[in-house]
Amino acid sequence: MFSIRKIITISDYVTMLNIITGLLAILLNSFSLIYISIIFDSLDGYVARKTNTVSDFGAELDSISDVVSFGVAPAYLLYSNFESTLSLIAAVIFCLCGALRLARFGILNVKGFIGLPIPAGALLLISFCQLINSNLINSILAILIGLLMISDIRYPKYPKKTFICIFAFSLILAIIGIPYFTLLLCLIYAIYGIVKYYKR
Amino acid sequence: MFSIRKIITISDYVTMLNIITGLLAILLNSFSLIYISIIFDSLDGYVARKTNTVSDFGAELDSISDVVSFGVAPAYLLYSNFESTLSLIAAVIFCLCGALRLARFGILNVKGFIGLPIPAGALLLISFCQLINSNLINSILAILIGLLMISDIRYPKYPKKTFICIFAFSLILAIIGIPYFTLLLCLIYAIYGIVKYYKR
Repeated sequence: MFSIRKIITISDYVTMLNIITGLLAILLNSFSLIYISIIFDSLDGYVARKTNTVSDFGAELDSISDVVSFGVAPAYLLYSNFESTLSLIAAVIFCLCGALRLARFGILNVKGFIGLPIPAGALLLISFCQLINSNLINSILAILIGLLMISDIRYPKYPKKTFICIFAFSLILAIIGIPYFTLLLCLIYAIYGIVKYYKR
Repeated sequence: MFSIRKIITISDYVTMLNIITGLLAILLNSFSLIYISIIFDSLDGYVARKTNTVSDFGAELDSISDVVSFGVAPAYLLYSNFESTLSLIAAVIFCLCGALRLARFGILNVKGFIGLPIPAGALLLISFCQLINSNLINSILAILIGLLMISDIRYPKYPKKTFICIFAFSLILAIIGIPYFTLLLCLIYAIYGIVKYYKR
């Protein structure tokens, strides 16, 4: 009756936690839950590699979960915070670009990333929204991040262990309501790609 | 700078309309916009075949758009209508099962469908929510539809032209606030699969 159980691996359960927290972020209007989604999103790939359970099903589920947690949820929080026509348009552009970015990622096989990865884009947008209470600035930022996501700008995969520890620490701070460090790290990452692109 | 334009075909633009209306259904708390999403979802495959633009990118984008319009949006409308713990749990189960259904569909290559297709599940849930104002009934229904989506029950592809015309007509009625016929058609479709499964 439910043979789907046979193809669900341990890493897919972690991805499912990403979907659940992403959806709850929307339903409960919570920034913290998106930060928690990021942790599950980082973990699922790690668990898949460690347990040797990388699968096509897992990759599909990953894209699907990412659009919920890092496309729809930030767009919803942006709009629900400001409820203006501008934030509505910006939310749609952000989510649409995120979806295009995910679909392109699903078919590309390149080293690193082309276009700002959607989790980084989501983090940048929501940490900014939490800190700066401006409809205009946040809406423009959402549109710019959207364009960065579908651009040809190359971004490196997230680097060494030291960075991951700093990033994890910044996420914990963000979950308890202090998103400054997350914002700073994502801003550096986003700008790094742009500078490198124009320096070529 | 935006070479992604080269891989976007005319049918992908239709899929993008599906994402936009699905997201707007969430942001504006609108049932009608989900019915409109269904129209774009039915159209994109048709346009892709007619214009010979079926692509991996299009298939990826399709899954991603479906989880927004037929997973998150109905879950959001269910919860926002009742705002109870039960509807919260039901919304999560519905969306999660929808995501699993989409990921499985992405890797399977079989005739017909295994598990209730997510657009049919979404239509059934939202038309019911619109007509029956009961937290308990709608929450239980959402969970049952979720289970149907991840079940092994086989469903036929939507049949001949006559049916499509009736379905299109029922959708137009639903968009203007009369979802009875859509509910009836989806209910017949959902029950047909169950009866056939147990009659084997």
